[in-house]
Amino acid sequence: MALIDLSLDELREYRPQRPEPEDFDQFWTETLAAANTHPIAASFEPVDTGLRLVHVEDVNFAGYGGQPVKGWLVRPAQAEGPLPCIVEFCGYGGGRGLAHEQLFWANAGYAHFLMDTRGQGGGWRVGETPDDGADGAGPSINGYMTRGIQSPETYYYRRLFTDAVRAVQAVREHPLVDAERIVTAGGSQGGGISLAVAGLVPDLAGVIADVPFLQLFRRATEITDGYPYKEIAAFLATQRDRVEQVFATLAYFDGVNFAARANAPALYTVALMDDICPPSTVFASYNHYAGPKQITVYPYNGHEGGGAFNAPKQLEFVRKVLGV
Amino acid sequence: MALIDLSLDELREYRPQRPEPEDFDQFWTETLAAANTHPIAASFEPVDTGLRLVHVEDVNFAGYGGQPVKGWLVRPAQAEGPLPCIVEFCGYGGGRGLAHEQLFWANAGYAHFLMDTRGQGGGWRVGETPDDGADGAGPSINGYMTRGIQSPETYYYRRLFTDAVRAVQAVREHPLVDAERIVTAGGSQGGGISLAVAGLVPDLAGVIADVPFLQLFRRATEITDGYPYKEIAAFLATQRDRVEQVFATLAYFDGVNFAARANAPALYTVALMDDICPPSTVFASYNHYAGPKQITVYPYNGHEGGGAFNAPKQLEFVRKVLGV
Amino acid sequence: MALIDLSLDELREYRPQRPEPEDFDQFWTETLAAANTHPIAASFEPVDTGLRLVHVEDVNFAGYGGQPVKGWLVRPAQAEGPLPCIVEFCGYGGGRGLAHEQLFWANAGYAHFLMDTRGQGGGWRVGETPDDGADGAGPSINGYMTRGIQSPETYYYRRLFTDAVRAVQAVREHPLVDAERIVTAGGSQGGGISLAVAGLVPDLAGVIADVPFLQLFRRATEITDGYPYKEIAAFLATQRDRVEQVFATLAYFDGVNFAARANAPALYTVALMDDICPPSTVFASYNHYAGPKQITVYPYNGHEGGGAFNAPKQLEFVRKVLGV
Amino acid sequence: MALIDLSLDELREYRPQRPEPEDFDQFWTETLAAANTHPIAASFEPVDTGLRLVHVEDVNFAGYGGQPVKGWLVRPAQAEGPLPCIVEFCGYGGGRGLAHEQLFWANAGYAHFLMDTRGQGGGWRVGETPDDGADGAGPSINGYMTRGIQSPETYYYRRLFTDAVRAVQAVREHPLVDAERIVTAGGSQGGGISLAVAGLVPDLAGVIADVPFLQLFRRATEITDGYPYKEIAAFLATQRDRVEQVFATLAYFDGVNFAARANAPALYTVALMDDICPPSTVFASYNHYAGPKQITVYPYNGHEGGGAFNAPKQLEFVRKVLGV
Amino acid sequence: MALIDLSLDELREYRPQRPEPEDFDQFWTETLAAANTHPIAASFEPVDTGLRLVHVEDVNFAGYGGQPVKGWLVRPAQAEGPLPCIVEFCGYGGGRGLAHEQLFWANAGYAHFLMDTRGQGGGWRVGETPDDGADGAGPSINGYMTRGIQSPETYYYRRLFTDAVRAVQAVREHPLVDAERIVTAGGSQGGGISLAVAGLVPDLAGVIADVPFLQLFRRATEITDGYPYKEIAAFLATQRDRVEQVFATLAYFDGVNFAARANAPALYTVALMDDICPPSTVFASYNHYAGPKQITVYPYNGHEGGGAFNAPKQLEFVRKVLGV
Amino acid sequence: MALIDLSLDELREYRPQRPEPEDFDQFWTETLAAANTHPIAASFEPVDTGLRLVHVEDVNFAGYGGQPVKGWLVRPAQAEGPLPCIVEFCGYGGGRGLAHEQLFWANAGYAHFLMDTRGQGGGWRVGETPDDGADGAGPSINGYMTRGIQSPETYYYRRLFTDAVRAVQAVREHPLVDAERIVTAGGSQGGGISLAVAGLVPDLAGVIADVPFLQLFRRATEITDGYPYKEIAAFLATQRDRVEQVFATLAYFDGVNFAARANAPALYTVALMDDICPPSTVFASYNHYAGPKQITVYPYNGHEGGGAFNAPKQLEFVRKVLGV
Repeated sequence: MALIDLSLDELREYRPQRPEPEDFDQFWTETLAAANTHPIAASFEPVDTGLRLVHVEDVNFAGYGGQPVKGWLVRPAQAEGPLPCIVEFCGYGGGRGLAHEQLFWANAGYAHFLMDTRGQGGGWRVGETPDDGADGAGPSINGYMTRGIQSPETYYYRRLFTDAVRAVQAVREHPLVDAERIVTAGGSQGGGISLAVAGLVPDLAGVIADVPFLQLFRRATEITDGYPYKEIAAFLATQRDRVEQVFATLAYFDGVNFAARANAPALYTVALMDDICPPSTVFASYNHYAGPKQITVYPYNGHEGGGAFNAPKQLEFVRKVLGV
Repeated sequence: MALIDLSLDELREYRPQRPEPEDFDQFWTETLAAANTHPIAASFEPVDTGLRLVHVEDVNFAGYGGQPVKGWLVRPAQAEGPLPCIVEFCGYGGGRGLAHEQLFWANAGYAHFLMDTRGQGGGWRVGETPDDGADGAGPSINGYMTRGIQSPETYYYRRLFTDAVRAVQAVREHPLVDAERIVTAGGSQGGGISLAVAGLVPDLAGVIADVPFLQLFRRATEITDGYPYKEIAAFLATQRDRVEQVFATLAYFDGVNFAARANAPALYTVALMDDICPPSTVFASYNHYAGPKQITVYPYNGHEGGGAFNAPKQLEFVRKVLGV
Repeated sequence: MALIDLSLDELREYRPQRPEPEDFDQFWTETLAAANTHPIAASFEPVDTGLRLVHVEDVNFAGYGGQPVKGWLVRPAQAEGPLPCIVEFCGYGGGRGLAHEQLFWANAGYAHFLMDTRGQGGGWRVGETPDDGADGAGPSINGYMTRGIQSPETYYYRRLFTDAVRAVQAVREHPLVDAERIVTAGGSQGGGISLAVAGLVPDLAGVIADVPFLQLFRRATEITDGYPYKEIAAFLATQRDRVEQVFATLAYFDGVNFAARANAPALYTVALMDDICPPSTVFASYNHYAGPKQITVYPYNGHEGGGAFNAPKQLEFVRKVLGV
Repeated sequence: MALIDLSLDELREYRPQRPEPEDFDQFWTETLAAANTHPIAASFEPVDTGLRLVHVEDVNFAGYGGQPVKGWLVRPAQAEGPLPCIVEFCGYGGGRGLAHEQLFWANAGYAHFLMDTRGQGGGWRVGETPDDGADGAGPSINGYMTRGIQSPETYYYRRLFTDAVRAVQAVREHPLVDAERIVTAGGSQGGGISLAVAGLVPDLAGVIADVPFLQLFRRATEITDGYPYKEIAAFLATQRDRVEQVFATLAYFDGVNFAARANAPALYTVALMDDICPPSTVFASYNHYAGPKQITVYPYNGHEGGGAFNAPKQLEFVRKVLGV
Repeated sequence: MALIDLSLDELREYRPQRPEPEDFDQFWTETLAAANTHPIAASFEPVDTGLRLVHVEDVNFAGYGGQPVKGWLVRPAQAEGPLPCIVEFCGYGGGRGLAHEQLFWANAGYAHFLMDTRGQGGGWRVGETPDDGADGAGPSINGYMTRGIQSPETYYYRRLFTDAVRAVQAVREHPLVDAERIVTAGGSQGGGISLAVAGLVPDLAGVIADVPFLQLFRRATEITDGYPYKEIAAFLATQRDRVEQVFATLAYFDGVNFAARANAPALYTVALMDDICPPSTVFASYNHYAGPKQITVYPYNGHEGGGAFNAPKQLEFVRKVLGV
Repeated sequence: MALIDLSLDELREYRPQRPEPEDFDQFWTETLAAANTHPIAASFEPVDTGLRLVHVEDVNFAGYGGQPVKGWLVRPAQAEGPLPCIVEFCGYGGGRGLAHEQLFWANAGYAHFLMDTRGQGGGWRVGETPDDGADGAGPSINGYMTRGIQSPETYYYRRLFTDAVRAVQAVREHPLVDAERIVTAGGSQGGGISLAVAGLVPDLAGVIADVPFLQLFRRATEITDGYPYKEIAAFLATQRDRVEQVFATLAYFDGVNFAARANAPALYTVALMDDICPPSTVFASYNHYAGPKQITVYPYNGHEGGGAFNAPKQLEFVRKVLGV
């Protein structure tokens, strides 16, 4: 995939107007308040993976609507004191996977919590958390991007972002986690969720967003045919009379609005040949990001972004923001 | 798409063992009984389409779980006496469309009811009926084939087939419909639903199933990469430990089991170059069909089947089985 | 297909120079005069479709060179007085289809004539009208776009556009058709033909052109790889020394030149993600259109354009221009 | 393209029943007799190619219906006595090309005549010969395979095969050509034509057919999606009621019937991974070939067959059958 | 990818004749002896990855021709006694990657050595080891499959397999590695190398081969178009006169011949929808494997095989064969 | 492929800055001097092709590092005096082919030398010359573009360009070749090599470069996904930390730098829809070319460029620059 978007010089200056509804903050305040009527009810059950250097726990907590959400907590087997924790979210279609899949952060000495994704987990990495959808929403196209898109109240990502905010609350209840030192992380959809949490949780220690998805929806649907943004365009190709309704809903979930509210130090990644999450949508978010920030640019990569080259850079960032 | 399956001679003899669970009948008896605790509550509101020869009504009735399901009822504008009714179901991804789209059956002098498809209707023809899913089911892959596939109770098609059975009940309540002369119909997923209804409703006048989907799932997933069967295979490529669980669920929804219970005269269509609904899966159903039956074979077609050539054949069939 | 052409703001202003030969009008005057040496010889034979609400007639008339051309005339079965008539032309590769396929306009109370397409009708909807080609034209590539493209006299579309003009003459001879109230219509190639007729027949009541093909050929061949425009580019990739010759021929058939001569009220459709008939070629035609005009823009559609959403808009337009 | 057909052992034995109409010989006798009412009228005009070792002539002769057909005659510049002549036909979509393109046979010391292909020559190598089609034939799909396929009388290949028979007559009139020593040749469609001529002209010195097209049509349409056979299948996917009519026409043009009538020594080529002209269709022809024969098998090639490896083998064959 | 090969029942019995040259053992004995004239010269340099639970060393040793080969040795940071070691080889196109990428085996308590792949490492995971090719070999197609394929002496895999045998020797020199307890492992090309080593090194503790590549070359090139086997077929499509020469070379490198010489307990993986390493090639190897063996079958997977589901099965196998 | 690059007007003015290293000339002076320590050792062995008009010789000479390189020398069979010679180089993946394949230049009265391509010749035309690679270079991706790309010294094209310079020296030793009248030629990679030789050999009579490859590497990798430029981008997508290193190497091989040093009259070809060698990369070279020059523009062609239309233009050019 050759360069498909603005030039790097243009990208660095690209700061489009944000599609922000007037009651954006009110919507999210009410959404999270409603969720908080349910106790977080986090449980941490040890799992036998056969691995000796790390300890893995099967996490359950009450997410949106008090519905059950799963995750894995992995930490050094010998850890004693409070550990900083990386809270990670999954890319589109994937779930938390199996208990032994995520070893990097624990091997680096941290606690690592990987949240399962409601409904997803059939596509590339397994998951187990159902999506108990909102009643009364209308039809959707294959996938999750248009589930309940008829209104902000019924939209799928309202449930998922709420789960993610509560995932941070859940790990803060763990006896070995240092509640003051939480870093959210993720790539693609996981990066988009990480940014959403950054805009909704005021006291994070850091935010990692690799090639983040869910940023500047409308432009994305206009400049790329790549899925999953394409799900929205394909839905509108059928439901031709809902263009404004759909983008009115999406405005409550657009990462650029969360970025403009964030304050924690952030590490973004962008790939200049990415036709899944085009670079201008990533830079739109980055350029609006309100906290301290840095961005790694991969000039010859698509949506795979930095791949294995990213982990050392993330580790360096985490050490800096955590001071450990 | 060249020939991809058995030869026509082999197809005519192909009658594989059916994957039938012992409690198949019990499962459906209980499912329909539970649905029947909800009144059918059918309403028929006139719609102004600007058309002069036909009269269109917006139908609402209570489907699975009493949840609202929509449809269009189209009939000759001047009709007075009781009309035989064609009850049609949609192909995968589509809904009932707009009010003016379906004119053939009404122009032929019948009532025509097209049921909306819960959750679908974002893919190629619009719909408006939501899928209020069962709580507690696990993750799925994009699409509807794996929604709630963790158990027969939670599987998406349990809800949809129940809607379809109740659609027949609903139209029978219409003052201008002749409740004794109902023909179910549909192509692809619609054909599969038509066959499911044929196995569950004992007093139909006829059954039309064009290139029916949802027949002999396991073989389908083994011989074609075509979607939507591929959704199942793709889900199992991730959820590798659920192969038996998934096919145990699907056995309650396999069209070959419904075909073996049907008694109404049936008209099937099969296309020999169909890689979406491969001919052996269609003939497996046809060869197990327990009522009077005939099949039209299109040797050079794919899933489009007979296209416009089919309507005259269907009209001839309907006239024969209805005696009008 | 993401946005592939100018922005909507640019499109609304896009009015490129037209490639018009000096003797454009003379060419068409002579062409139609030559055709008019053959009597129109329209015949209308009733067809038994089994449908009760409409009456269908198999139409034959003498087109270009007096060669036989077919069509279907469909009207309300009970019609008595003179009916306005929609004269429709087919998309590329298709013919008039089977007698029962077109019901919308008759159901709305109009006569509807669908002209068969010479030579075509093997691709997606059946036809029966041969193309008796001009003698002495040179080679072509697969398809119709380059048949006889060696000169305006031998070009395929000279024959087809002449057929179309004479189709209007033919239906005006029908006893139940109101010759004063003719609306031409069509999508894609049919829309291009509709516009050509609009430029050649001075007394139409209205013109419908959905995602019209055959507009601004050269730009089309430069900005899209979509067929059938691509047939021209592919031919020129082989016949490298004929670029100027080919575009000199096409100038006599370019819809922008017909649009600039039209006077009837027009309804255009354009789809912003259409890579078959790119939006700038449609707007070039629309912006040059000399009569009253309106255009419907579908932002997330490809060449399928408005699909079923279009019929109600067309009906509204037809009622307005016909006053009925 | 992996192996797609029978195994080599099976291919060597594959001799299916030929689809031969009773009046096959009568049809061709009458066709050629009708053509012979037109004088051959061959002309040979020198062309300046700038080449010094060969002499090129622009050939014109009267083909089917007395219609003009072109070709190039290339021979050693210094030739004096009568030369054996290779009469070659083009692959599908191509014409005779430019005057300097064909040098091999003349460099080997022979005269070489390359016949242009009526109507073709827009696809990969230029041509200049028009196809003046038969009046009254019906619609076709893009391409030449279905032109006039409504009857043997109107079918495109009736005209083309007749041209080819007359091409042999034409070169025999050339003062430097040895009329007793004519070898026909061609690859793909050219190979099919070469075989047709071999079945219609009794006194050829040899026949070359590389990966020949136009053999055993029905099986070809059933086992491959490759074009151009696919044109037939695609036509029948639309014109669903013409399957028997189409194959009744094609039986008059099937290479297996010509092969069964040939007597000259033949050199075939087959490629085992050829999905354009599948190996079983080639072997069906080869195994029915009635004259002396040999076949070269390329196990890892597709339709490109032997490529440059073929010319030395052909030269060896030609020397053997010509004795020079 | 639907099922593309024999049925599972047939696969379990599939034991084709092996293409074994008479001097197979002599060839390898001489090859390894020649290599052994170079000292192994293994060095192990600590690398700072920032990880706390594991210790990583940058390994260098002398491979084929004494040429330098790299690898990573990863082990628990606190290990003291001799550790069993998993020696792993890379899939096609990949190298050893970055130092922090492989954590599973060390987290399970073992030493893990991942050998770099000469010349590869530009395709999906980085590498650093050059391929100093054999002088005098002929041309190749893109990729490694045909490098030096003109003779067994010059073939690329002679060098790579020799590197792999010497990798086992190298790790045995490490002070913390238990030289008696070595398990080779790898997926795809890595699985093929693992099997080659199993046939050349007599005292391994276990062998893991996931969806192994390099088994039964000729059948593979005949039944799949998947790369990299396709490199061989594509080379032969050009170099048409070298079919026998190429397979004569490959016989010295065919995994089925190594399998027939192995004695260590083996764990195979096969995926029934794998079109890169088709199941019959894997079962051919498995069914010829001479030591104790077991195979995991993934019915709905392609070449990704068991993915994350495999690691627990491998860990269980390793624990069993190592007794720890 | 529609237009993918600048407009023709922009292309004619496109003259970007060249990426020229300071020691470019020194690098090549030293490279050629080192090569010249090996005698050229040209041999010319007659080959029996069975052709009568031309005489073919199998050429061997010592190329880079004194390594053996092959080629064909074809000339009129009757030639006596010194002949001007066309020295041609091959497109990517191809070798010199078989002895009878190249006849045009000899038929025009010239000597024609076609140099084999080291290592290539497995892809589309056979070759026989091995690439004895430089020791110590690192990994590469499939193909030749990244072989030894770690440094200018080890890069594959250093060896190949040196071969090409020495090919000119070799033919100059032939008794029938006029050493004063040498024209280099080639298409795609062959055109790139032709330009490299034009920049390194000061006394050529002419230079032909059709759709030349290897010009303005970085822009090429940014604007097209076409192979083989894509090999570089794909390598950098894995080896993310080597972007600057790779382009530092390529600067020594970029055709724009050779063009700026050339003095012989040049004939370029460019195709405006070429996505393999995009037009801006060709014009960048052309606009920097320092000698007399002309360019043929094909507006509707891709990388096939002028095809058979080119030879007459080249012959006209050659006659002009040679005066014969």
